[in-house]
Amino acid sequence: MDQTLKEFDKIIMGIDPGTNVMGYGVLGVKGKTPELIVMGIIKLSKFENHYLRLARIYERVGGLVEQYLPDELAIEAPFFGKNVQSMLKLGRAQGVAMAAALARDIPIFEYAPRSIKQSVTGQGAASKEQVANMLKHILKIAPEKMPDVLDATDALAAALTHFYEQSKPAIAKGPTSWKDFLAKNPERLAPRRK
Amino acid sequence: MDQTLKEFDKIIMGIDPGTNVMGYGVLGVKGKTPELIVMGIIKLSKFENHYLRLARIYERVGGLVEQYLPDELAIEAPFFGKNVQSMLKLGRAQGVAMAAALARDIPIFEYAPRSIKQSVTGQGAASKEQVANMLKHILKIAPEKMPDVLDATDALAAALTHFYEQSKPAIAKGPTSWKDFLAKNPERLAPRRK
Repeated sequence: MDQTLKEFDKIIMGIDPGTNVMGYGVLGVKGKTPELIVMGIIKLSKFENHYLRLARIYERVGGLVEQYLPDELAIEAPFFGKNVQSMLKLGRAQGVAMAAALARDIPIFEYAPRSIKQSVTGQGAASKEQVANMLKHILKIAPEKMPDVLDATDALAAALTHFYEQSKPAIAKGPTSWKDFLAKNPERLAPRRK
Repeated sequence: MDQTLKEFDKIIMGIDPGTNVMGYGVLGVKGKTPELIVMGIIKLSKFENHYLRLARIYERVGGLVEQYLPDELAIEAPFFGKNVQSMLKLGRAQGVAMAAALARDIPIFEYAPRSIKQSVTGQGAASKEQVANMLKHILKIAPEKMPDVLDATDALAAALTHFYEQSKPAIAKGPTSWKDFLAKNPERLAPRRK
Protein backbone atom coordinates (compact mmCIF):
# COMPACT_ATOMS: atom_id res chain seq x y z
CA MET A 1 0.00 0.00 0.00
CA ASP A 2 1.18 3.47 -0.90
CA GLN A 3 2.31 5.18 2.37
CA THR A 4 0.48 8.42 1.55
CA LEU A 5 -2.85 6.54 1.35
CA LYS A 6 -2.49 5.61 5.04
CA GLU A 7 -2.91 9.28 5.97
CA PHE A 8 -6.59 9.16 5.02
CA ASP A 9 -9.43 8.13 7.30
CA LYS A 10 -11.44 7.03 4.31
CA ILE A 11 -10.95 6.65 0.56
CA ILE A 12 -13.88 7.02 -1.85
CA MET A 13 -13.62 6.07 -5.51
CA GLY A 14 -16.05 7.67 -7.96
CA ILE A 15 -16.84 6.11 -11.32
CA ASP A 16 -18.68 7.61 -14.28
CA PRO A 17 -19.32 4.53 -16.38
CA GLY A 18 -19.76 4.89 -20.10
CA THR A 19 -19.26 2.62 -23.06
CA ASN A 20 -16.87 5.02 -24.86
CA VAL A 21 -15.09 6.69 -21.95
CA MET A 22 -15.11 5.73 -18.28
CA GLY A 23 -14.14 8.43 -15.81
CA TYR A 24 -12.70 7.82 -12.35
CA GLY A 25 -11.86 10.04 -9.42
CA VAL A 26 -10.41 9.09 -6.04
CA LEU A 27 -11.04 11.19 -2.96
CA GLY A 28 -9.21 10.88 0.34
CA VAL A 29 -10.92 12.08 3.53
CA LYS A 30 -8.92 13.45 6.47
CA GLY A 31 -11.24 14.16 9.37
CA LYS A 32 -13.96 16.23 7.75
CA THR A 33 -11.91 17.37 4.75
CA PRO A 34 -12.06 15.71 1.34
CA GLU A 35 -8.95 15.85 -0.84
CA LEU A 36 -8.21 14.83 -4.43
CA ILE A 37 -5.95 11.79 -4.72
CA VAL A 38 -6.23 11.13 -8.45
CA MET A 39 -8.63 11.41 -11.38
CA GLY A 40 -8.55 10.30 -14.97
CA ILE A 41 -10.28 8.45 -17.74
CA ILE A 42 -10.22 5.02 -19.31
CA LYS A 43 -10.54 5.39 -23.09
CA LEU A 44 -12.64 2.64 -24.60
CA SER A 45 -13.41 4.02 -28.05
CA LYS A 46 -10.19 2.56 -29.48
CA PHE A 47 -11.60 -0.94 -28.95
CA GLU A 48 -14.16 -1.76 -31.61
CA ASN A 49 -15.10 -5.05 -29.99
CA HIS A 50 -17.68 -4.78 -27.21
CA TYR A 51 -16.05 -7.56 -25.14
CA LEU A 52 -12.62 -6.00 -25.38
CA ARG A 53 -14.16 -2.85 -23.95
CA LEU A 54 -15.75 -4.78 -21.09
CA ALA A 55 -12.49 -6.66 -20.45
CA ARG A 56 -10.62 -3.34 -20.41
CA ILE A 57 -13.07 -1.82 -17.91
CA TYR A 58 -12.74 -4.85 -15.62
CA GLU A 59 -8.95 -4.82 -15.82
CA ARG A 60 -8.54 -1.06 -15.30
CA VAL A 61 -11.16 -0.61 -12.56
CA GLY A 62 -9.73 -3.70 -10.82
CA GLY A 63 -6.25 -2.16 -11.11
CA LEU A 64 -7.43 1.16 -9.65
CA VAL A 65 -9.13 -0.65 -6.77
CA GLU A 66 -5.90 -2.58 -6.04
CA GLN A 67 -3.86 0.61 -6.22
CA TYR A 68 -6.02 2.99 -4.20
CA LEU A 69 -7.87 0.53 -1.95
CA PRO A 70 -11.10 2.54 -1.72
CA ASP A 71 -13.42 1.90 1.23
CA GLU A 72 -16.47 2.72 -0.87
CA LEU A 73 -17.41 3.06 -4.53
CA ALA A 74 -19.76 5.80 -5.77
CA ILE A 75 -21.10 5.52 -9.28
CA GLU A 76 -23.01 7.93 -11.47
CA ALA A 77 -26.01 5.91 -12.57
CA PRO A 78 -28.50 7.35 -15.02
CA PHE A 79 -31.83 5.57 -14.80
CA PHE A 80 -33.16 6.63 -18.17
CA GLY A 81 -31.40 6.24 -21.46
CA LYS A 82 -32.10 6.77 -25.10
CA ASN A 83 -33.20 3.22 -25.87
CA VAL A 84 -33.20 -0.33 -24.51
CA GLN A 85 -30.17 -1.30 -26.62
CA SER A 86 -27.96 1.48 -25.24
CA MET A 87 -29.21 0.80 -21.70
CA LEU A 88 -28.21 -2.87 -21.99
CA LYS A 89 -24.70 -1.84 -23.08
CA LEU A 90 -24.46 0.74 -20.31
CA GLY A 91 -25.72 -1.84 -17.80
CA ARG A 92 -23.00 -4.24 -18.89
CA ALA A 93 -20.30 -1.58 -18.55
CA GLN A 94 -21.64 -0.73 -15.08
CA GLY A 95 -21.90 -4.43 -14.15
CA VAL A 96 -18.30 -5.13 -15.13
CA ALA A 97 -17.04 -2.07 -13.19
CA MET A 98 -19.17 -3.08 -10.19
CA ALA A 99 -17.82 -6.64 -10.34
CA ALA A 100 -14.31 -5.27 -9.83
CA ALA A 101 -15.55 -3.74 -6.55
CA LEU A 102 -17.85 -6.64 -5.60
CA ALA A 103 -14.89 -9.04 -5.97
CA ARG A 104 -13.25 -7.14 -3.11
CA ASP A 105 -16.38 -6.64 -0.96
CA ILE A 106 -16.39 -2.88 -1.49
CA PRO A 107 -19.85 -1.35 -0.93
CA ILE A 108 -21.34 0.45 -3.93
CA PHE A 109 -23.50 3.57 -3.83
CA GLU A 110 -25.33 5.03 -6.80
CA TYR A 111 -26.22 8.62 -7.46
CA ALA A 112 -28.34 10.00 -10.27
CA PRO A 113 -26.62 12.65 -12.44
CA ARG A 114 -29.07 15.30 -11.23
CA SER A 115 -28.39 14.55 -7.55
CA ILE A 116 -24.64 14.80 -8.17
CA LYS A 117 -24.96 18.19 -9.88
CA GLN A 118 -27.30 19.41 -7.15
CA SER A 119 -24.97 18.21 -4.42
CA VAL A 120 -21.80 19.73 -5.89
CA THR A 121 -23.07 22.98 -7.41
CA GLY A 122 -26.46 23.52 -5.76
CA GLN A 123 -28.12 23.26 -9.18
CA GLY A 124 -29.53 20.00 -10.56
CA ALA A 125 -29.27 21.32 -14.11
CA ALA A 126 -25.63 22.52 -13.88
CA SER A 127 -23.33 21.92 -16.87
CA LYS A 128 -20.29 19.62 -16.75
CA GLU A 129 -18.10 22.76 -16.83
CA GLN A 130 -19.89 24.20 -13.80
CA VAL A 131 -19.41 20.91 -11.94
CA ALA A 132 -15.69 20.88 -12.87
CA ASN A 133 -15.22 24.51 -11.73
CA MET A 134 -16.94 23.89 -8.43
CA LEU A 135 -14.78 20.80 -7.78
CA LYS A 136 -11.67 22.87 -8.56
CA HIS A 137 -12.81 25.42 -5.98
CA ILE A 138 -13.98 23.00 -3.25
CA LEU A 139 -11.00 20.63 -3.49
CA LYS A 140 -8.47 23.41 -4.25
CA ILE A 141 -7.23 21.66 -7.38
CA ALA A 142 -4.35 23.40 -9.19
CA PRO A 143 -5.38 24.49 -12.73
CA GLU A 144 -2.71 22.26 -14.34
CA LYS A 145 -4.22 19.25 -12.60
CA MET A 146 -7.66 19.82 -14.10
CA PRO A 147 -8.43 17.28 -16.85
CA ASP A 148 -9.48 18.12 -20.39
CA VAL A 149 -12.04 15.34 -20.47
CA LEU A 150 -14.94 16.03 -18.12
CA ASP A 151 -15.80 12.37 -17.52
CA ALA A 152 -13.01 12.48 -14.92
CA THR A 153 -14.56 15.41 -13.04
CA ASP A 154 -18.00 13.78 -13.28
CA ALA A 155 -16.58 10.71 -11.56
CA LEU A 156 -14.91 12.84 -8.90
CA ALA A 157 -18.24 14.65 -8.40
CA ALA A 158 -19.90 11.26 -7.70
CA ALA A 159 -17.25 10.58 -5.03
CA LEU A 160 -17.76 14.03 -3.48
CA THR A 161 -21.55 13.58 -3.49
CA HIS A 162 -21.08 10.34 -1.60
CA PHE A 163 -18.80 12.09 0.89
CA TYR A 164 -21.48 14.76 1.49
CA GLU A 165 -24.21 12.15 1.84
CA GLN A 166 -22.19 10.18 4.39
CA SER A 167 -21.35 13.35 6.31
CA LYS A 168 -24.97 14.48 6.71
CA PRO A 169 -26.09 14.55 10.33
CA ALA A 170 -28.83 12.08 11.19
CA ILE A 171 -32.15 13.76 10.44
CA ALA A 172 -33.66 15.32 13.60
CA LYS A 173 -36.83 13.62 14.68
CA GLY A 174 -40.03 15.37 13.69
CA PRO A 175 -42.51 16.62 16.28
CA THR A 176 -44.24 13.83 18.12
CA SER A 177 -47.45 15.67 19.00
CA TRP A 178 -49.53 18.61 17.89
CA LYS A 179 -48.55 20.47 21.06
CA ASP A 180 -44.89 19.80 20.32
CA PHE A 181 -45.38 20.93 16.69
CA LEU A 182 -46.97 24.21 17.77
CA ALA A 183 -44.21 24.83 20.29
CA LYS A 184 -41.67 24.53 17.50
CA ASN A 185 -43.79 26.35 14.88
CA PRO A 186 -45.63 29.13 16.75
CA GLU A 187 -46.46 30.93 13.48
CA ARG A 188 -48.74 28.00 12.51
CA LEU A 189 -51.02 28.75 15.44
CA ALA A 190 -54.03 30.67 14.12
CA PRO A 191 -54.51 33.95 16.05
CA ARG A 192 -57.33 33.71 18.53
CA ARG A 193 -60.30 35.90 17.81
CA LYS A 194 -60.91 38.60 20.36
CA MET B 1 -9.03 -30.06 -11.76
CA ASP B 2 -11.62 -32.79 -11.65
CA GLN B 3 -10.18 -35.85 -13.44
CA THR B 4 -13.37 -36.50 -15.42
CA LEU B 5 -13.16 -33.02 -16.97
CA LYS B 6 -9.88 -33.99 -18.61
CA GLU B 7 -11.75 -36.47 -20.82
CA PHE B 8 -13.31 -33.64 -22.80
CA ASP B 9 -11.77 -31.94 -25.80
CA LYS B 10 -13.70 -28.79 -25.02
CA ILE B 11 -15.96 -27.48 -22.26
CA ILE B 12 -18.66 -24.91 -23.02
CA MET B 13 -20.54 -23.10 -20.27
CA GLY B 14 -23.96 -21.65 -21.09
CA ILE B 15 -25.52 -18.87 -19.03
CA ASP B 16 -29.10 -17.56 -19.10
CA PRO B 17 -28.71 -14.34 -17.16
CA GLY B 18 -31.68 -12.91 -15.35
CA THR B 19 -32.15 -10.67 -12.37
CA ASN B 20 -34.36 -13.15 -10.47
CA VAL B 21 -32.94 -16.48 -11.57
CA MET B 22 -29.72 -17.19 -13.45
CA GLY B 23 -29.49 -20.52 -15.26
CA TYR B 24 -26.28 -22.33 -16.10
CA GLY B 25 -25.45 -25.43 -18.10
CA VAL B 26 -22.06 -27.00 -18.77
CA LEU B 27 -21.44 -29.10 -21.85
CA GLY B 28 -18.42 -31.30 -22.45
CA VAL B 29 -17.41 -32.16 -26.02
CA LYS B 30 -15.70 -35.47 -26.89
CA GLY B 31 -14.76 -35.50 -30.54
CA LYS B 32 -17.98 -34.45 -32.24
CA THR B 33 -20.29 -35.46 -29.39
CA PRO B 34 -21.66 -33.01 -26.83
CA GLU B 35 -22.46 -34.33 -23.36
CA LEU B 36 -24.13 -32.82 -20.29
CA ILE B 37 -21.75 -32.19 -17.39
CA VAL B 38 -24.02 -30.20 -15.09
CA MET B 39 -26.88 -27.73 -15.14
CA GLY B 40 -28.66 -25.72 -12.49
CA ILE B 41 -29.86 -22.34 -11.36
CA ILE B 42 -28.69 -19.54 -9.13
CA LYS B 43 -31.68 -18.18 -7.20
CA LEU B 44 -31.49 -14.45 -6.78
CA SER B 45 -35.02 -13.56 -5.72
CA LYS B 46 -34.22 -14.20 -2.05
CA PHE B 47 -31.91 -11.19 -2.09
CA GLU B 48 -33.93 -7.99 -1.99
CA ASN B 49 -30.88 -5.80 -2.43
CA HIS B 50 -29.78 -5.30 -6.04
CA TYR B 51 -26.06 -5.32 -5.11
CA LEU B 52 -26.34 -8.50 -3.11
CA ARG B 53 -27.82 -10.10 -6.23
CA LEU B 54 -24.95 -8.85 -8.38
CA ALA B 55 -22.41 -9.98 -5.78
CA ARG B 56 -24.07 -13.40 -5.69
CA ILE B 57 -23.94 -13.71 -9.50
CA TYR B 58 -20.26 -12.79 -9.55
CA GLU B 59 -19.42 -15.21 -6.75
CA ARG B 60 -21.42 -18.14 -8.14
CA VAL B 61 -20.46 -17.73 -11.82
CA GLY B 62 -16.83 -17.27 -10.74
CA GLY B 63 -17.12 -20.45 -8.68
CA LEU B 64 -18.60 -22.42 -11.60
CA VAL B 65 -15.83 -21.17 -13.88
CA GLU B 66 -13.20 -22.29 -11.33
CA GLN B 67 -14.88 -25.66 -10.95
CA TYR B 68 -15.60 -26.57 -14.57
CA LEU B 69 -12.89 -24.55 -16.34
CA PRO B 70 -14.90 -23.83 -19.50
CA ASP B 71 -13.02 -22.97 -22.67
CA GLU B 72 -15.84 -20.75 -23.88
CA LEU B 73 -18.88 -19.00 -22.45
CA ALA B 74 -22.17 -18.81 -24.37
CA ILE B 75 -24.83 -16.45 -23.09
CA GLU B 76 -28.46 -15.98 -23.99
CA ALA B 77 -28.70 -12.28 -24.71
CA PRO B 78 -32.03 -10.69 -25.50
CA PHE B 79 -31.61 -7.43 -27.34
CA PHE B 80 -35.02 -6.00 -26.60
CA GLY B 81 -36.59 -5.67 -23.21
CA LYS B 82 -39.68 -4.22 -21.69
CA ASN B 83 -38.19 -0.89 -20.71
CA VAL B 84 -34.91 0.96 -20.26
CA GLN B 85 -34.95 0.37 -16.49
CA SER B 86 -35.21 -3.42 -16.78
CA MET B 87 -32.60 -3.47 -19.56
CA LEU B 88 -30.14 -1.59 -17.35
CA LYS B 89 -30.64 -4.16 -14.59
CA LEU B 90 -30.33 -7.04 -17.03
CA GLY B 91 -27.20 -5.45 -18.50
CA ARG B 92 -25.68 -5.25 -15.02
CA ALA B 93 -26.47 -8.91 -14.32
CA GLN B 94 -24.92 -9.86 -17.67
CA GLY B 95 -21.91 -7.61 -17.07
CA VAL B 96 -21.20 -9.14 -13.67
CA ALA B 97 -21.50 -12.68 -15.07
CA MET B 98 -19.29 -11.74 -18.03
CA ALA B 99 -16.69 -10.22 -15.69
CA ALA B 100 -16.30 -13.61 -14.01
CA ALA B 101 -15.33 -15.00 -17.44
CA LEU B 102 -13.35 -11.94 -18.59
CA ALA B 103 -11.25 -12.16 -15.41
CA ARG B 104 -10.05 -15.56 -16.66
CA ASP B 105 -9.70 -14.62 -20.36
CA ILE B 106 -12.56 -16.88 -21.41
CA PRO B 107 -14.08 -15.82 -24.75
CA ILE B 108 -17.78 -14.90 -24.64
CA PHE B 109 -20.33 -15.61 -27.36
CA GLU B 110 -23.87 -14.26 -27.40
CA TYR B 111 -26.94 -15.82 -28.94
CA ALA B 112 -30.39 -14.28 -29.24
CA PRO B 113 -33.22 -16.37 -27.65
CA ARG B 114 -34.75 -16.94 -31.08
CA SER B 115 -31.48 -18.26 -32.55
CA ILE B 116 -31.09 -20.66 -29.63
CA LYS B 117 -34.62 -22.04 -30.05
CA GLN B 118 -34.10 -22.32 -33.80
CA SER B 119 -30.77 -24.07 -33.39
CA VAL B 120 -31.97 -26.60 -30.79
CA THR B 121 -35.52 -27.36 -31.97
CA GLY B 122 -35.59 -26.08 -35.54
CA GLN B 123 -38.27 -23.56 -34.57
CA GLY B 124 -37.48 -19.99 -33.56
CA ALA B 125 -40.78 -19.71 -31.68
CA ALA B 126 -40.45 -22.96 -29.69
CA SER B 127 -41.56 -22.99 -26.03
CA LYS B 128 -39.16 -23.50 -23.12
CA GLU B 129 -40.69 -26.98 -22.65
CA GLN B 130 -39.98 -27.89 -26.28
CA VAL B 131 -36.39 -26.73 -25.86
CA ALA B 132 -36.05 -28.79 -22.67
CA ASN B 133 -37.50 -31.91 -24.33
CA MET B 134 -35.22 -31.60 -27.32
CA LEU B 135 -32.16 -31.22 -25.06
CA LYS B 136 -33.24 -34.33 -23.14
CA HIS B 137 -33.39 -36.21 -26.43
CA ILE B 138 -30.19 -34.87 -28.03
CA LEU B 139 -28.01 -35.17 -24.93
CA LYS B 140 -29.71 -38.37 -23.68
CA ILE B 141 -30.42 -36.87 -20.27
CA ALA B 142 -32.09 -39.22 -17.78
CA PRO B 143 -35.57 -37.98 -16.75
CA GLU B 144 -34.54 -37.65 -13.10
CA LYS B 145 -31.72 -35.32 -14.09
CA MET B 146 -34.07 -32.89 -15.83
CA PRO B 147 -34.54 -29.71 -13.79
CA ASP B 148 -37.87 -28.24 -12.69
CA VAL B 149 -36.79 -24.73 -13.45
CA LEU B 150 -36.35 -24.14 -17.16
CA ASP B 151 -33.75 -21.40 -16.81
CA ALA B 152 -31.24 -24.25 -16.46
CA THR B 153 -32.26 -25.87 -19.76
CA ASP B 154 -32.27 -22.45 -21.46
CA ALA B 155 -28.65 -22.00 -20.38
CA LEU B 156 -27.75 -25.48 -21.59
CA ALA B 157 -29.46 -24.67 -24.90
CA ALA B 158 -27.17 -21.62 -25.27
CA ALA B 159 -24.14 -23.88 -24.77
CA LEU B 160 -25.46 -26.40 -27.33
CA THR B 161 -26.16 -23.62 -29.84
CA HIS B 162 -22.58 -22.48 -29.47
CA PHE B 163 -21.37 -26.05 -30.00
CA TYR B 164 -23.40 -26.26 -33.23
CA GLU B 165 -22.16 -22.86 -34.43
CA GLN B 166 -18.53 -23.84 -33.81
CA SER B 167 -19.05 -27.20 -35.56
CA LYS B 168 -20.38 -25.65 -38.77
CA PRO B 169 -18.08 -26.20 -41.74
CA ALA B 170 -16.47 -23.05 -43.08
CA ILE B 171 -18.84 -21.52 -45.62
CA ALA B 172 -17.79 -22.46 -49.16
CA LYS B 173 -16.72 -19.48 -51.19
CA GLY B 174 -19.36 -18.13 -53.51
CA PRO B 175 -18.81 -18.09 -57.29
CA THR B 176 -16.30 -15.48 -58.42
CA SER B 177 -17.70 -14.93 -61.92
CA TRP B 178 -20.86 -15.41 -63.96
CA LYS B 179 -19.14 -18.18 -65.91
CA ASP B 180 -18.15 -19.89 -62.66
CA PHE B 181 -21.73 -19.47 -61.36
CA LEU B 182 -23.22 -21.08 -64.47
CA ALA B 183 -20.72 -23.93 -64.30
CA LYS B 184 -21.91 -24.66 -60.74
CA ASN B 185 -25.59 -23.96 -61.43
CA PRO B 186 -26.31 -25.24 -64.98
CA GLU B 187 -30.08 -25.15 -64.34
CA ARG B 188 -29.93 -21.36 -64.17
CA LEU B 189 -28.83 -21.15 -67.81
CA ALA B 190 -31.88 -20.25 -69.89
CA PRO B 191 -32.44 -22.73 -72.74
CA ARG B 192 -31.28 -21.26 -76.05
CA ARG B 193 -34.00 -20.59 -78.53
CA LYS B 194 -33.82 -22.77 -81.60
